[in-house]
Amino acid sequence: MNSDAQYAASPAPVIASGVLPVLKQFTLPEALGFGRVMAPIMYRAQFRNGGWQAAQVLPYEAISIDPAAKVLHYAQEVFEGLKAYRHSDNNVSLFRPLENWKRFNRSADRMCMPAVPESIFMDGVSAVSSLMAKHIPAKPGQSLYLRPFMIGVDASLGLAASLDNDFYVIASPSEVYQQGSFKVMIERQDCRAALGGTGNVKVGGNYAAALAAGRRVQAAGFDQSLWLDPAEHRYIEELSGMNVFALINGALHTPSLSGSILPGITRDSVLQLARLSGVEVIERSIDINELLEAVVSGECSEVFACGTAAVITPISIIADGDIRYEFKAGNPFATQLHTLLTDIQEGRGEDVFNWNWPLTDVNVLDTSDSV
Amino acid sequence: MNSDAQYAASPAPVIASGVLPVLKQFTLPEALGFGRVMAPIMYRAQFRNGGWQAAQVLPYEAISIDPAAKVLHYAQEVFEGLKAYRHSDNNVSLFRPLENWKRFNRSADRMCMPAVPESIFMDGVSAVSSLMAKHIPAKPGQSLYLRPFMIGVDASLGLAASLDNDFYVIASPSEVYQQGSFKVMIERQDCRAALGGTGNVKVGGNYAAALAAGRRVQAAGFDQSLWLDPAEHRYIEELSGMNVFALINGALHTPSLSGSILPGITRDSVLQLARLSGVEVIERSIDINELLEAVVSGECSEVFACGTAAVITPISIIADGDIRYEFKAGNPFATQLHTLLTDIQEGRGEDVFNWNWPLTDVNVLDTSDSV
Repeated sequence: MNSDAQYAASPAPVIASGVLPVLKQFTLPEALGFGRVMAPIMYRAQFRNGGWQAAQVLPYEAISIDPAAKVLHYAQEVFEGLKAYRHSDNNVSLFRPLENWKRFNRSADRMCMPAVPESIFMDGVSAVSSLMAKHIPAKPGQSLYLRPFMIGVDASLGLAASLDNDFYVIASPSEVYQQGSFKVMIERQDCRAALGGTGNVKVGGNYAAALAAGRRVQAAGFDQSLWLDPAEHRYIEELSGMNVFALINGALHTPSLSGSILPGITRDSVLQLARLSGVEVIERSIDINELLEAVVSGECSEVFACGTAAVITPISIIADGDIRYEFKAGNPFATQLHTLLTDIQEGRGEDVFNWNWPLTDVNVLDTSDSV
Repeated sequence: MNSDAQYAASPAPVIASGVLPVLKQFTLPEALGFGRVMAPIMYRAQFRNGGWQAAQVLPYEAISIDPAAKVLHYAQEVFEGLKAYRHSDNNVSLFRPLENWKRFNRSADRMCMPAVPESIFMDGVSAVSSLMAKHIPAKPGQSLYLRPFMIGVDASLGLAASLDNDFYVIASPSEVYQQGSFKVMIERQDCRAALGGTGNVKVGGNYAAALAAGRRVQAAGFDQSLWLDPAEHRYIEELSGMNVFALINGALHTPSLSGSILPGITRDSVLQLARLSGVEVIERSIDINELLEAVVSGECSEVFACGTAAVITPISIIADGDIRYEFKAGNPFATQLHTLLTDIQEGRGEDVFNWNWPLTDVNVLDTSDSV
């Protein structure tokens, strides 16, 4: 089913008694947006006394956390984002979930948290997706956005890694992150992550550090910050939660993984699709001034963002203080890549890289039965 | 009472019905440590619909958090640490609490969170300290460690600042952070915060980024990481949660506030006490190699850490990989400063700077009465 690794099946999680009733009651609202409508169920596995306890699917509800828990003071928290797509045959397919699992454990290691076994991670995303199958919106751009996360719950105030940790999968039936294009603003003041910091893993602190720049960006009428490197504030890095690509003289350029950039799974998919299309791909340090000059000269004809939530979204304006660099020639290359990628994700195109992970137990649980 | 600012009294918080019984049942264990024994009560004020709601003192208990809350994914969280001391006359005194309040709000602003009014912050730390008055341990080095913190609780998965925020004060009857001295190890690999990041405010992500280095340090038999600057990995910054001082040729040197160092309140107190003692104080960039050479030559005779939890703790060894730089001549200067500072904090010495903030309503609530 997937060439990357073998999915070791583990015992099915216990489904708590309240789960099927809340699924039965759930209806998908007309307006979804991104990450606003939460699935009525969640998956939980707890790490206690050095081992993982039996996992459960539970009704989605507030969780109890000790006020001294590490996650609330020292941000010991990691997360992932991936999507389940409902295809036209009503089968449900995850997109490259093992890549998320691997990155999740790199993040967990950076945060001194236990690795989540493949079986638990995959059980979690599979169980939530399968149980939600009937409620996964299936128009183009729609999916079930899955959010695995883990938090340190030890209750003491000394700075130390938590021994007890809770792993959850929650989910949100969602649209793509943003319709249309992004207007981005070069962030000349703040940095999202230090070299030797946590920028190359998916942990809360990176995003917390980005909030203030996000506030300035939105006050100026833009959508996203374009981050520069933390050492020299000169080389482009990423948007918050998205990687960046530039089409320059027909070749596709993207910042190399410097250590403070998140290695995006969509980034990797874009690189593979571009190579398959015969486009030259160049991973390198990209000086922001060089990029802006190439935009002015026309050598750089397109810039776009990519990520799980954003998929592939063109950038229409790059602002540098009061100066605006606009792209007016449309986005033929980003559009072509978007079609290639979403045709695979949404089940219309041939899955040439074996990226899709079809779930086999969908509809096994008929939530229309009374419990 | 305190020259820094006027404490605007506000309505006393509502004391929930379970508070006096749990206080009555509470007994202080023999062994305290730091941050391990939690006070049985907590203070909570909630920011909703753009305003602060009436605060409450509650029994200490697990809090309910939506699994999609910003704090659990994007580390939108700030905190402070300060201490309440029970003096020999049984009065309780906070140490420079307004400085913590001011820094808390600088941290909150960096995290795009609402400012906590002085009245709420001071009510919180005062109410918890007053109610706990009889249980504040009062031997030298002991205190009630207070932990105000605020978390973003909006439940949605898009990266955005939370509109709803919860402010808490929890507390722990504690010893000093560590008895004796610290063995520190120069951290040559990681950084705790970027320039333009969040190192100069007290937010979870800084501490999360420090956990992995802490794991290496402890595996090597040391206590703390000595962080270098994020741009060049060359200038000393701080320990995680403590500032650093070096006595070189009789003058007191400490890293200047570079933007990635926390402006410690104990750091400021040490600077003022040293100046008062007629010692020259020099805030500057300190090259780690210069410092190590000065240790070897004997020009640097003492290095010590300071912070609310650690107060003033000598550093006995600085390790750089396998090389160890040891201080064997005792710590007369750190010891003298420690005496000056703790004599004020613990009520034995003259409070020349008006740092103490005596609570006036202590013992008003007699917890020995039945409720």
